[in-house]
Amino acid sequence: MNDINPTPAQVREKIRQGIITGQTAGMCSGYAQANLCVLPREYAYDFLLFAQRNPAPCPILEVSDPGDRLLHTIAKNADVATDFPKYRIYIDGVMTEEVTDASFFWREDLVSFLIGCSFSFEGELLAAGIPVRHIEEGRNVPMFLTNIPCQPAGIFHGNMVVSMRPMPADQVVRAVNATAAMPKVHGAPVHIGDPAGIGIADIHCPDFGDAVTVYPGEVPVFWPCGVTPQAAVMAAKPSFAITHAPGHMLITDIPNTALKY
Amino acid sequence: MNDINPTPAQVREKIRQGIITGQTAGMCSGYAQANLCVLPREYAYDFLLFAQRNPAPCPILEVSDPGDRLLHTIAKNADVATDFPKYRIYIDGVMTEEVTDASFFWREDLVSFLIGCSFSFEGELLAAGIPVRHIEEGRNVPMFLTNIPCQPAGIFHGNMVVSMRPMPADQVVRAVNATAAMPKVHGAPVHIGDPAGIGIADIHCPDFGDAVTVYPGEVPVFWPCGVTPQAAVMAAKPSFAITHAPGHMLITDIPNTALKY
Repeated sequence: MNDINPTPAQVREKIRQGIITGQTAGMCSGYAQANLCVLPREYAYDFLLFAQRNPAPCPILEVSDPGDRLLHTIAKNADVATDFPKYRIYIDGVMTEEVTDASFFWREDLVSFLIGCSFSFEGELLAAGIPVRHIEEGRNVPMFLTNIPCQPAGIFHGNMVVSMRPMPADQVVRAVNATAAMPKVHGAPVHIGDPAGIGIADIHCPDFGDAVTVYPGEVPVFWPCGVTPQAAVMAAKPSFAITHAPGHMLITDIPNTALKY
Repeated sequence: MNDINPTPAQVREKIRQGIITGQTAGMCSGYAQANLCVLPREYAYDFLLFAQRNPAPCPILEVSDPGDRLLHTIAKNADVATDFPKYRIYIDGVMTEEVTDASFFWREDLVSFLIGCSFSFEGELLAAGIPVRHIEEGRNVPMFLTNIPCQPAGIFHGNMVVSMRPMPADQVVRAVNATAAMPKVHGAPVHIGDPAGIGIADIHCPDFGDAVTVYPGEVPVFWPCGVTPQAAVMAAKPSFAITHAPGHMLITDIPNTALKY
């Protein structure tokens, strides 16, 4: 295999073998990465409906059939239970452990939801000549809980979580256009400017991820975030759930550009 | 009320009262219209998943909670059981009757799926200066069963049904761009040109709707069609289903332009 530019399938193989167990940020540049939420079939309709009603924070890329560990659309023959570098196991809404292989926890009634990730549109931002601050500073993107309510569905409800990227005012329009074309990976910003406008008290104290530098005169731009459905799932306390560990995503076969309308 | 330019709510009221029972084509110009598929809760997950896996022919605009007749998003306080001019009742996949009020058939376990309609993007085509042949000729759009398989989901499966609009070659690119921006109402064409390429034997013999004139040198352009999910539902023969009668849609409060990305 080509160790300089391995294919997504080659990287998934190394992850499956436990050779790669770290974060996937920057791996297989140009290919979309996916978040994971695995739930028993009894919760699958409510979760799929929650995603349908809140597509911006919860863009579904693929849904497996109950018990089927293999993916068929976004990552040919990827194994949901082994091809993420790290997983979190939740029982009754409480995380019980982190594992690098979820095979031991697999059940025939589990449905896997693969969810679009902002890594994809960050590639678009960089391609549009818009620097991404948390990448520049080598940190995780800052994320905030807002006062924007999601549309509830069955047992799932909660407010939207957003990710924030600061930029000079003259880059905002390009950032909106670049990301609006990618609704399957959160799409356009949900808010631009005053953090208080969406219930954020302190732009320097994110609820998740790391704080980043916001230079004087820069505008904070807020995008719907994939942590939203994870927060809704945890709040609903399902009897069992598996998610990817933060930053440890699935590398798909889908080029980011293929996610554009 | 204003009889010259009634609002969607005013027209829905007249439909609810049985004053309007005909087709809705052309009513409340500029507002999106929606197709309907009502199924018992036991089939709702399979249908929602079918829509998620086949978003082009099956773009979901709103899904009701089980038993809830009122819509909350696309048409405030619209009553699913009375605000379509005409319904079709299906038992075990067979149409048993057409009614103008579905209240008598309502059950507490019914889930309503409101589906995007090509009327919306036809408005965009006309706005882009692209004449729509079946409108010019006062006919229903010609629809064809293709050899393009839908991704199955549970009990639902089948090939894609497409609608066809012929146009001069120099209008095709504009037609693609105008409709690609509206994925919630079927989006971009699925095929351009040779009907045989998607398994259509005779462009002059549609499987549904009416034939339209195709002038020499014109290119047939094919879009995913909302008849696809209806055909999939009928093929699956659920114990009970309600759909709108062809052409008798719900007039929503959503301006077509609001459906654009």
